[in-house]
Amino acid sequence: MNSHHGRGYPATATQAAFPLGGVGTGNVSLGARGELRDWEIFNAPAKGTYLPNTFVTVSALPEGASRVTRVLEGPVHGTHALSHGYHPHTGIGLPRFAESTLAGTYPIAELSWHDDAVPVAVALEAFTPFVPLNPVDSGIPCAVFNYTVTNPRAVACDVSLIFSLYDAASGVAFDKYGNIVGDGGSQITVQHDTDFTTLQFTNAQIAPDAERYAELALSTNASDVSFRTSWERGGWWDYVQDFWDDVHGDGRLTDYAYGTPTPKGPNDTGSLAAHVRLQAGETRVVTFVLTWYVPNRRKTWEKAVAPLTQNHYANVYMSAMHVCADVWERMPVLTTQTRQFRDVMSTMSLPEPLRDALAATIVPMRSTTCFWLADGNFYGWEGCFDDAGCCPGTCTHVWSYAYAMAYLFPQLERNMRTTEFTVETEADGYMIFRTFQPFGEEFVWGWGDQRPEACIDGQMGCVLRAWREWQLSGDRVWLTSIYSGVVRAVDYAHQHWDQDGDGIPDGRQHNTYDIEFYGANPLSTLYFLAGLKAGAALAQAMGDDANAQRWQAMAQLGQARFVELCWNGSYFIQHIDDVDAHRYQHGLGILTDQLLGQLHATLLGLGDLVPAEMIESTLQQIYTHNFRTSFHGHANTQRTYVLEDEHGLVMCSWPNGGRPRFPFVYSEEVWTGVEYHVAAHLLACGYISNATRLVKALRARHDGFKRNPWNEVECGHHYARTMSAWMLLPAASGFVCNMDEGWMRFAPQGVLLAQDECVLPWFTQRAWGVYRQSKQTDGSWQATVHVLAGDLDGVRIDVPHGVHLLT
Amino acid sequence: MNSHHGRGYPATATQAAFPLGGVGTGNVSLGARGELRDWEIFNAPAKGTYLPNTFVTVSALPEGASRVTRVLEGPVHGTHALSHGYHPHTGIGLPRFAESTLAGTYPIAELSWHDDAVPVAVALEAFTPFVPLNPVDSGIPCAVFNYTVTNPRAVACDVSLIFSLYDAASGVAFDKYGNIVGDGGSQITVQHDTDFTTLQFTNAQIAPDAERYAELALSTNASDVSFRTSWERGGWWDYVQDFWDDVHGDGRLTDYAYGTPTPKGPNDTGSLAAHVRLQAGETRVVTFVLTWYVPNRRKTWEKAVAPLTQNHYANVYMSAMHVCADVWERMPVLTTQTRQFRDVMSTMSLPEPLRDALAATIVPMRSTTCFWLADGNFYGWEGCFDDAGCCPGTCTHVWSYAYAMAYLFPQLERNMRTTEFTVETEADGYMIFRTFQPFGEEFVWGWGDQRPEACIDGQMGCVLRAWREWQLSGDRVWLTSIYSGVVRAVDYAHQHWDQDGDGIPDGRQHNTYDIEFYGANPLSTLYFLAGLKAGAALAQAMGDDANAQRWQAMAQLGQARFVELCWNGSYFIQHIDDVDAHRYQHGLGILTDQLLGQLHATLLGLGDLVPAEMIESTLQQIYTHNFRTSFHGHANTQRTYVLEDEHGLVMCSWPNGGRPRFPFVYSEEVWTGVEYHVAAHLLACGYISNATRLVKALRARHDGFKRNPWNEVECGHHYARTMSAWMLLPAASGFVCNMDEGWMRFAPQGVLLAQDECVLPWFTQRAWGVYRQSKQTDGSWQATVHVLAGDLDGVRIDVPHGVHLLT
Repeated sequence: MNSHHGRGYPATATQAAFPLGGVGTGNVSLGARGELRDWEIFNAPAKGTYLPNTFVTVSALPEGASRVTRVLEGPVHGTHALSHGYHPHTGIGLPRFAESTLAGTYPIAELSWHDDAVPVAVALEAFTPFVPLNPVDSGIPCAVFNYTVTNPRAVACDVSLIFSLYDAASGVAFDKYGNIVGDGGSQITVQHDTDFTTLQFTNAQIAPDAERYAELALSTNASDVSFRTSWERGGWWDYVQDFWDDVHGDGRLTDYAYGTPTPKGPNDTGSLAAHVRLQAGETRVVTFVLTWYVPNRRKTWEKAVAPLTQNHYANVYMSAMHVCADVWERMPVLTTQTRQFRDVMSTMSLPEPLRDALAATIVPMRSTTCFWLADGNFYGWEGCFDDAGCCPGTCTHVWSYAYAMAYLFPQLERNMRTTEFTVETEADGYMIFRTFQPFGEEFVWGWGDQRPEACIDGQMGCVLRAWREWQLSGDRVWLTSIYSGVVRAVDYAHQHWDQDGDGIPDGRQHNTYDIEFYGANPLSTLYFLAGLKAGAALAQAMGDDANAQRWQAMAQLGQARFVELCWNGSYFIQHIDDVDAHRYQHGLGILTDQLLGQLHATLLGLGDLVPAEMIESTLQQIYTHNFRTSFHGHANTQRTYVLEDEHGLVMCSWPNGGRPRFPFVYSEEVWTGVEYHVAAHLLACGYISNATRLVKALRARHDGFKRNPWNEVECGHHYARTMSAWMLLPAASGFVCNMDEGWMRFAPQGVLLAQDECVLPWFTQRAWGVYRQSKQTDGSWQATVHVLAGDLDGVRIDVPHGVHLLT
Repeated sequence: MNSHHGRGYPATATQAAFPLGGVGTGNVSLGARGELRDWEIFNAPAKGTYLPNTFVTVSALPEGASRVTRVLEGPVHGTHALSHGYHPHTGIGLPRFAESTLAGTYPIAELSWHDDAVPVAVALEAFTPFVPLNPVDSGIPCAVFNYTVTNPRAVACDVSLIFSLYDAASGVAFDKYGNIVGDGGSQITVQHDTDFTTLQFTNAQIAPDAERYAELALSTNASDVSFRTSWERGGWWDYVQDFWDDVHGDGRLTDYAYGTPTPKGPNDTGSLAAHVRLQAGETRVVTFVLTWYVPNRRKTWEKAVAPLTQNHYANVYMSAMHVCADVWERMPVLTTQTRQFRDVMSTMSLPEPLRDALAATIVPMRSTTCFWLADGNFYGWEGCFDDAGCCPGTCTHVWSYAYAMAYLFPQLERNMRTTEFTVETEADGYMIFRTFQPFGEEFVWGWGDQRPEACIDGQMGCVLRAWREWQLSGDRVWLTSIYSGVVRAVDYAHQHWDQDGDGIPDGRQHNTYDIEFYGANPLSTLYFLAGLKAGAALAQAMGDDANAQRWQAMAQLGQARFVELCWNGSYFIQHIDDVDAHRYQHGLGILTDQLLGQLHATLLGLGDLVPAEMIESTLQQIYTHNFRTSFHGHANTQRTYVLEDEHGLVMCSWPNGGRPRFPFVYSEEVWTGVEYHVAAHLLACGYISNATRLVKALRARHDGFKRNPWNEVECGHHYARTMSAWMLLPAASGFVCNMDEGWMRFAPQGVLLAQDECVLPWFTQRAWGVYRQSKQTDGSWQATVHVLAGDLDGVRIDVPHGVHLLT
C-alpha cells in the first residue's frame, strides 16, 4: 500500500501508537511495526503493556515454491538493553517482515508491510467505528481489522492469516523472569455462526460482578478457517516452538482441544486462521474483529476500595459475543460512516499540519483520559499516567481549553456542564473545579481542611462552555436544568473576585497554573469578561433580562478598565505593585495565555472584549517573543516538554525585564493545548502562515520517533487540554450557530480561499456536514452546505456577503 | 579531548553507561552525556535510577565578556515520551553542552564536552582505583573525577565547577508525579581539611545498624571553593530556579545554612564549587571525589527478612569520611596503579575488538553481580535484574566459564572454590551447584522436595578451576583445605554419571542449559574428562598417587570411547537412540559449547582430550554453521539477544537434520559468554581472523546505542559467564604456570608476532606484569617479562624455542 492518509511512520518510529477503541471503552494501540501494544481495555491506562503470544502470522505457499511464514510485523530496531533479552512470548525472535509503515488519519489506521521474501503483499485498515454526534456507535468496545492480501505473482498462492491472542480475559501477569503466570480457569471456545467464526475468551472462575471480570472475542468472516483454542500447555517456552512448527508445517492450525480450563499457570492462547487461495494477481480482504467486554469498574477516581459501577457500554451490550454479533451485523454502515468522517478530516481545506492536528486531537475523548458510566455521566481526567489517571475530577480549568468533543459528541459535553452546574456549584455559587461529589468523595487536596480556592478560569470557562453547548444544541430543557447554577456561578465570580466592582478581578485568583495570580491580569480578566458576556447571553436566552443587563454592563465596565490597567502599548501585563510580594506571578512578562478569554468570546460569537488592534499587537508579541526555534540555551527550571533543537511556544517571557524571582510555575514550559489556541487565534485574525508554523512545529515534535503522533502529553498522556486544537476549525471557517434561534453562519478566512475552493466540516447537535465555498468560472463565489448526518430543516444559513448559497 | 582510549560514544548513545565502583561496593555509572546514572551503591542493582538535582555545572566568565553557565552534560536526544515531561530535578531543561563523547578503557572513563558558546574546554577522567591482585584497593567505595579545564582564549577566564549531589544517604523516593519525597532528617555538613573540602551527607534519624544506613561524602582539593549545604527548601520546584540563579549570578554559591535537618519532604541537595582562574591558554585539573558507605546488607540471596551482615569494605573503613581521607592520602599511588593497568589493557598486542572485550568483561566482578562480605567470603549472582540479583548461588555452571577474576583477583576466586568444596560438597561428593548453605538457606527450587540434580559441567568446572587456582597461587594451605572435597566431588562424578565405568557420562546430566542431557554427548563428556585430568593433577600435587592414577586412567579410557561414540567425521554429536524420548536434547545438532571442556584442558595445561584434527574440524563446523551474519529469517522461539541485521553465534544448529521436536532450551539463543570461548579456542588454534570476527560482531552489538558496551547480558545484566572473554588472554599468549613448581610458560600465537612484537599481560597470585617478545634487527627474537607488581623470585620462565629471554 503506497498511498495512505496522513503521515507515514516506519518501523523505527517506536513511539508511534495508533489507539483503537471507542468512547468509554479503553484502547489497544497499533505500533509502527504493526504490533498490538498498550492494552488499556481493562478500565485503566496501561502504556507499555503487551500481551504474550499475541501477533498475526502470515504463511504463504505459492504454487511450485516453498512456504514462507512471517510474523506480520515490521523489524525490531532500536535499543535492545533488556536484562534478560526478549522473552520468547514476545515473538521477537520469529521471522518477520523487512519493512512496515504505519499511517492513517484518525480514526482509521493504515499499515502496510513489505518483504522481498514474502510472495504476497499485505496491508491493514484498522479502526473502531466513529460516528460524529453518536457516542454510542462511537463507543463500541471493538477493533476492526481489514487485511488486504494481494498476490502479485503469476501463480496461485495459498495464504493463511493467523491471528493469535492471549487470554487476557483471565488476567495478564508475569513472574520476574517474564514468564507468564495466571490463576487458572482460562478456557477458549470456538463458536461457528453463519457469517463468522469466533474464539471466545472467558473464565468461569471469575464472577461476572467482579471488578476484574472480562471477556474477549476474536472473529473472522473468512469461509475457510482453522483454529487452536489453546497453544501447547507445555514446559519452558515450548508453546512458541510448537505453534510456529504447526503454522509453518502446512499453514493450518491443529487444535489441542484440551477441553478443560487451565490450571494455575499460563492462560491459554487462542489462534484463529483465515485461509484464502489467491489466483495470480488477485486481491482479497479478510476481516478480523476483536471485541472486549470489561463492564465493571470502581465508582471513584483513585480509591483502591470503592463500590463498583459499570461502563456505559454495558447498557448496550451483554457480552463480548454480543458486541461481536452487533459489529458483524452493522459492519457495512459502521464502516461507511467511519470512512466518511475520516475522509472529511483528511481532505478539509487546511494546511496539512492543521488537518493532522485536528484528527490527532480527537484521541483524548476516546482514550482512558475519559470514562462514561452506565448512569449516563461522562467524566474526564486531565490525562493519564502510564498506569492510572491524572489528575482527577474533570478539571474545569483544563477542560475549558477543549473544543473537540463539544462538536463531535455535544451530548457528552453537555453532560459535563450538567454535573458542574447542578452538582458542583454550591448554594453561594462557589464552584468546585474538580468533580468529586457524584462519587460521594470530597476534593480537598492542597488546601488542608479548607475549601479549595475557586478557580477563575475554570469557573468562567464553565459558563462560556454552557453558552457554547446551548448554541450547538438549542436544548432548552437542558439549559433550564442548569440555569440556576449558571446564575449562582456568575454572581459568585464577580462578588468573589471583583469586590470593588470595577469589572476587574483583583483578589486571589486561582488558575490553571495551579497557583494564584494577584491583581488585574489578562488571563483572569478576559476569562472573567468573556464569562460575564456568556452569562448575559444565556440570561437573555432564558428571558432573564435583569441578569443579562447587569452582567453585560459589568463586562462593559471591565473592558474599559482592563485596558487602562493592563495595556502596556504592545500587550497586556499583570498590574501589580510588587511582583515578588507573592511567588508565581508574571508581572511584565508576555503571557501566552493572555488572550484566551478573548478567543473564547470570538469563537462563540461574543465579540471583541478589547480593541482588535490590541489583539493583533498582542498576538504578534506572543509569536515574536515566545515562539522559540531552539531550546539549546533555554534555561527551564520547570518541566521539560520541548528541548534541544525543537521548536515550541513557551508560556511566558520577559523581554522587557521584570521577571519575578520565582515566576509562576509552568512559565518556561511548552503546552500543546496552549500552542493550539494561539494558532487558532492567529488563524482567526488571518495569520495563517504563523498559525501553521506553530502547529507544524508542534506536530513535528510528535514524529513517531520522539513522541507518539496520537498522544500529546502535558500533565499526563492524551491530555484533555490538547483538544483545544479544535478551536482551529471555527477559527478557519468562522462557524458560529445558534440552534435555538435556528441559524448557522460561515465566514471562512480569506486566505483559505486562495485555492478557489474552501471545504470545512461543521458540527451541531442535530447535524454535521461540510461547508464548501467555491469560485465559479465567472469569478463569483458559490457556497453549499452538505449534510452528512441529521438535518437542518428550518435552519437559516448565513454566508459571507456576495457569496451565493446553493440550497 | 580528541584523543582517548577505546571506542567513543556520542551523547546519542543512550545505552552506554560506564560503571564506577569497586569490588563489592556497588556502582554509579557515567552515561554518554556525562550524566551520573544507575545508582547501585545501596547494595542492590538499580538500573535506570538517577538522583534528583545531581549534576555538574560549569560557569565561566572570560574577561570582558558575559558569563556562560551550562550543565556539564551532552544534549538529550532520543525519545521524549514521558507522561509528564522531564521533571525539573532532572535538570534536563537547563542549558547544557552541544556535544559530548564518552570513551575509555575500563577501569578509566574519559569524557569530553564541547560547545561553541562555552569559552572553556572541559574533559573528565573518572575511575575507581583498580589494582590487580589487590581486591581491597580495588574495592574502595569511591569514584574519582579529574576535570581538566582549558582556556583556549587570549584572555583570562574565571571558571566555576559546581558538583551538586542529592542527599541519597537519607533515601531516594518520588511521588507519582516524580516529586521528591523523604522521611526527613537529611542534613549536609561541610568539613574543611588541609588539602580538601568535603560535604558530608548523613542522617541522624537512621540508626548505624539499620539496613538502610548510608553515608556519602563529596570533596574537592580546589583551594578556592564555595558551597551550599542545602538548596532552597521552597515550594514547587523553586530549588532549581534558585540554584540556577545563584550559580549564573556570580558563579559562586551562597549557603542557606539552615542548620537543622530537613522535615518530612525532600532531602537536601548539596553543591560544592571549585573556582579557578585560568590565564590565557592555561589548563588546570580540578579533582572531586565521591565516596559512599552503605555498610549493612542482608545475609541472604533473596529473602526480604534475614539477619544483617556487612560489606567487606566495612572491615577497612569506618565511614564515608574515612574512605574520603584515605583516597586523598593515597591518591597519587592509586591513580598511577590504575592508569598503569589501563595502559596495559589498551596497548596489548591483540586486535582492537579483543582488547575492547577484555577490558569490558572486567566489569561483572566490580558490579552488583558480585558481593564481598565482612567475613571474607565472596559471592556472585549469575547476573542482575534491573533491581535485584539473578540468579542466586554463585552458580557453578555459569561461573565455570569465567576466567577474568582468576587472574585479576585470584584470592577472591579461590574463596569461591573454598565455599564450593568445604561447604557445598556433601559427604557423598554430591555438589550443590548453587551456594546457599553459608546463609543457612536451602537451594531447592525446581526439584520440589528432592535434592537438586547435580550439575555435570558445574561440578567438573569446580574441579578444573581448583586446578587453575592452584596453578596460579601454589597455595598449599588452601589446596589442603579443599582437597578432601575435591576427592569426593570427582568420585561422585564418575560414580553418578558413569555407572558403567566406560569413562563416559551417560546418565541424566543436568547442565548449564537448565535441563538434562541423556547419553554420551560432547559437552558433558569433555567437561568430565577434563575434570578427571584436573583431579588427577591435583591428586599428584597432593601426593595422592592412587587417585591420580585412577582418574588419569579413567580419563584415558573415556577419551577413546568418546571418539567412538560421538565423532561423526566432522564434529561431535549426542549419542542417543531417540532424540525425542526426552525433550531438550541436541542429537545431531552442532553444539557450540561442545569443546568447552577441551578448551579448559588446553588453557590449564592438561593437554588434548581428543585429537587436534578433530578439534580443528569441530571449530570449523561451529564457525561455519553457527555464526550468523543475519538474523532476519532466523526462527528463534526462545529468548532473543541478537536480531535483525546483527551477527552472532547461535548455540546450536542442525544443518544435517535430526532436529528434535523440542530442542534444548537456549539452542537458538546467542550468549556472549559462549561466543568468547569459541573465539578463544579459535585463537588458541591460530585462527585469529575468525576469532576476531566473532568478537568484533559481539562488541559491535554493544555499540552504546542498542546496548551498553560495559554490560553484556544473558540471564541478567553484567552476566558472570561473559568473563569467559579472559580465556582469550592465555589463548593468545599460551600462558600457563605452576606457582607451586615455580614456573611460567609463554607461547604466543605466531600470528600475533606478525608485527615483530607481541606484548601481553600475565597474572598470578604473587605478581602480574607484561610479557614482551620482539624481533631484533638481526632477525632473532628476544623476550622480556616485566613485573608490574609483586615478584617472580625463583620462578623459571619458559619461552618458545629459539627466543632469547632477557633477565
